[in-house]
Amino acid sequence: EEVAKLLALKAQLTNDAPPQKFVLKTPKGTRDYNPQQMAIRNSVLQKIISVFKKHGAECIDTPVFELKEVLTGKYGEDSKLIYDLKDQGGEILSLRYDLTVPLARYLAMNKINNLKRYHIAKVYRRDNPAMTRGRYREFYQCDFDIAGQFDPMVPDAECLKVVTEILDSLDIGKYILKVNHRCLLDGMFEACGVPAEQFRSTCSTIDKLDKSPWQEVRTEMINEKGVTPEAADRIGEYVRLNGSTELVDKLLQDEKLSKSKSAVEGLQGIKLLLEYCELYGIKDKVLFDLSLARGLDYYTGIIYEAVLTEPIKIGGEEQSVGSIAGGGRYDNLVGMFDTKNKQVPCVGISVGVERVFSVLEARLAAGELSVRPSEIDVYVASAQKDFLTTRMRICNELWDAGIKAEQPYKKNPKMLNQLQHCEENGIPLAVILGESELKRGLVKIRNIVTRQEDEVPRDKLVEELKNRINMLNINVNGLEK
Amino acid sequence: EEVAKLLALKAQLTNDAPPQKFVLKTPKGTRDYNPQQMAIRNSVLQKIISVFKKHGAECIDTPVFELKEVLTGKYGEDSKLIYDLKDQGGEILSLRYDLTVPLARYLAMNKINNLKRYHIAKVYRRDNPAMTRGRYREFYQCDFDIAGQFDPMVPDAECLKVVTEILDSLDIGKYILKVNHRCLLDGMFEACGVPAEQFRSTCSTIDKLDKSPWQEVRTEMINEKGVTPEAADRIGEYVRLNGSTELVDKLLQDEKLSKSKSAVEGLQGIKLLLEYCELYGIKDKVLFDLSLARGLDYYTGIIYEAVLTEPIKIGGEEQSVGSIAGGGRYDNLVGMFDTKNKQVPCVGISVGVERVFSVLEARLAAGELSVRPSEIDVYVASAQKDFLTTRMRICNELWDAGIKAEQPYKKNPKMLNQLQHCEENGIPLAVILGESELKRGLVKIRNIVTRQEDEVPRDKLVEELKNRINMLNINVNGLEK
Repeated sequence: EEVAKLLALKAQLTNDAPPQKFVLKTPKGTRDYNPQQMAIRNSVLQKIISVFKKHGAECIDTPVFELKEVLTGKYGEDSKLIYDLKDQGGEILSLRYDLTVPLARYLAMNKINNLKRYHIAKVYRRDNPAMTRGRYREFYQCDFDIAGQFDPMVPDAECLKVVTEILDSLDIGKYILKVNHRCLLDGMFEACGVPAEQFRSTCSTIDKLDKSPWQEVRTEMINEKGVTPEAADRIGEYVRLNGSTELVDKLLQDEKLSKSKSAVEGLQGIKLLLEYCELYGIKDKVLFDLSLARGLDYYTGIIYEAVLTEPIKIGGEEQSVGSIAGGGRYDNLVGMFDTKNKQVPCVGISVGVERVFSVLEARLAAGELSVRPSEIDVYVASAQKDFLTTRMRICNELWDAGIKAEQPYKKNPKMLNQLQHCEENGIPLAVILGESELKRGLVKIRNIVTRQEDEVPRDKLVEELKNRINMLNINVNGLEK
Repeated sequence: EEVAKLLALKAQLTNDAPPQKFVLKTPKGTRDYNPQQMAIRNSVLQKIISVFKKHGAECIDTPVFELKEVLTGKYGEDSKLIYDLKDQGGEILSLRYDLTVPLARYLAMNKINNLKRYHIAKVYRRDNPAMTRGRYREFYQCDFDIAGQFDPMVPDAECLKVVTEILDSLDIGKYILKVNHRCLLDGMFEACGVPAEQFRSTCSTIDKLDKSPWQEVRTEMINEKGVTPEAADRIGEYVRLNGSTELVDKLLQDEKLSKSKSAVEGLQGIKLLLEYCELYGIKDKVLFDLSLARGLDYYTGIIYEAVLTEPIKIGGEEQSVGSIAGGGRYDNLVGMFDTKNKQVPCVGISVGVERVFSVLEARLAAGELSVRPSEIDVYVASAQKDFLTTRMRICNELWDAGIKAEQPYKKNPKMLNQLQHCEENGIPLAVILGESELKRGLVKIRNIVTRQEDEVPRDKLVEELKNRINMLNINVNGLEK
């Protein structure tokens, strides 16, 4: 006690740093995760990882920063959102913008032709954050990609299967998987009279159709991208179409599209994909949608996006979530890193977990979800004074037996505070030490929920607790609905 | 087939990016983790996390970068190793240097007085990398800290218990836990005639004793830190001492030290810590060592370091690992972020997992360890042509039943290649489809290791596989010794 006081006194004296002068915050667009949020995050990621593993994906990791040159020329106009590191002598570095370019760099650098991998890590974009809707400057991506030369649409269909398994296991509402094909988009532009050099920019305008009405997109196409009004109107006819195999068949007969080799390639690809989706029992969830374009330049084949079809109700309010996963085929990206331009075809999906986190956090805030950040099963408490060393000895026994246990770090904690701690933290069992019981060779075990107390022999304590913990069958993830 | 060729042709044509001009590498001092390395890493981290959870630690996470001001003035002369981000407009940011300062910022910002948390994340230091010995510029820290006003040495002793549980579960060799106390060091300097303003710099010189002999340290003390030769020699007498409770008792009687209030405080603290270590059954692993100083400025009480006492033999060669965990008490750091200088006392440990990784990776390279990056249990193969859709259908059944399964993504894979794939990836079971069996309503299951094949009814396949997988009792972590 005396020592503690002296130490505290000394601490005050030696602390000669001036008090805090700036506003304490995390950088713009970032946040801390508190224990509740981490429990949610870890539970969501565990579910995603087990789907990835079910499909044989291996895990890799890459540094958080890359040589700036690795990222240069991969993201089109989004390159302005890349975080650069200060030049402190040595290499010029940037924070990774996604996990796809680092994967391509990894494959090319190590001359790997075949890899089914997942990668879960944070990426960085100096974008305008909208944190309540789960849009941050530092955010998680969960990527699953299949690299290698394989038969058409086989890995592509498996990516869609993986997305459905993940969304089903996360159980966050009804969804639809939109698919389209970059070759069909190119063929459609060609058939509508857009010059080849305007394909990519027209494509990124189409990508805005999920947020803006056609009239606005049409105007941008004409005024900013130089598409003729006639071409734009022809595109407008196509992009309102969506359906399934019958639409593919109809478009294969379409007067204009059937003349474009690229459009026919794309349509045949989608037709095959839909067949495989039927085999995988997910065809009813897939929608062939000609308005799906995806922003990134590097896609070369199938593209997809999973969208929640109903707003989510949280605490009486409806929240629209929208796109929750996306991806596609990019056959040329690895070749950009190879001195001989050697290609490794890739296809992959990326799950937008931040939106999942934000839905679950909103549910937590609305009291529709409860989480348990600590996994302690047994709290070692004492009813009288001077039981610190006894509590420590018992904790030690429990730890050595593999039981998750803790005790108050104070010499003489109050009984009420100890029980409150158990209730607040969802600790199911308490060992309560008392002088009279110990003299009789007994200790009390209290069930925190039922408040029932049983006396058990001191030397059977570990065994008794293990039995009770097994019976309680506590949710391992700490996440309970 | 035709479509694939056309797509490949198109891919070549549309890929107009120039071939790679710079050397493909990860930034200096960083590395990728390949699937084998990730399997090792995840297995090590899982073991550490389960110890942290056994002691009731909750998980938090903070952004990879902080406002530069948050890091300023916390690391002394090591501040030059901090990575700064480029000023791109907006806030001035730096990459985190450790997880301790972000924890202190988090506690102060959220006005949290009590927290037992773990945090496992990468930190960044522009240091001279020594990658073969596990020293990187981007590396993992695994931190466990207890924040709050508690009775002396109770949380401090638990941190040591946590370290022993982790090192025991990682099973990487014999170790010792060195402990010392910053108050004793200060008292010792005082008793030896070092002026108060030289305490910190003298302390950081002492810290070099684990790498340099006393004569060198003495010279640096005298020539660079301005300590008198007499004072240095007196210090030299003390820092060669180490022992246990009997040494504490002896020093409490020491003529010079017993006159220093600070030294007596430190000694009494260590005495209490050793008592608690006895209760926790770890006293034989703890060594009170007066030469232990720890580099960082912010420690205010007990300090500790876990050191492997024997070189590790890998592939016939001995590798010296040295320090593998460290930490201590820092009671003033949170107050530096509080406008009213309000303190939250903290104590914690940090496990140097990179050294653990490098030991295990060396064992892997020497063939003393094998890992399985993919967790696939069943490979769906076919003996004849044109079984792609049947294989896909069966995979789908297995996935829907929760079985980890994959199949070749090719239409007509060779039997030999398929079996080789299973052997190389440690896949224990293969389903082999053949026309004659399927006509009889049967499929073959092959045990890859024993090469035994059994015919089972097609409609009992899932059930049969589940039984066999349970029997094989595959190591969940994918890490096998």
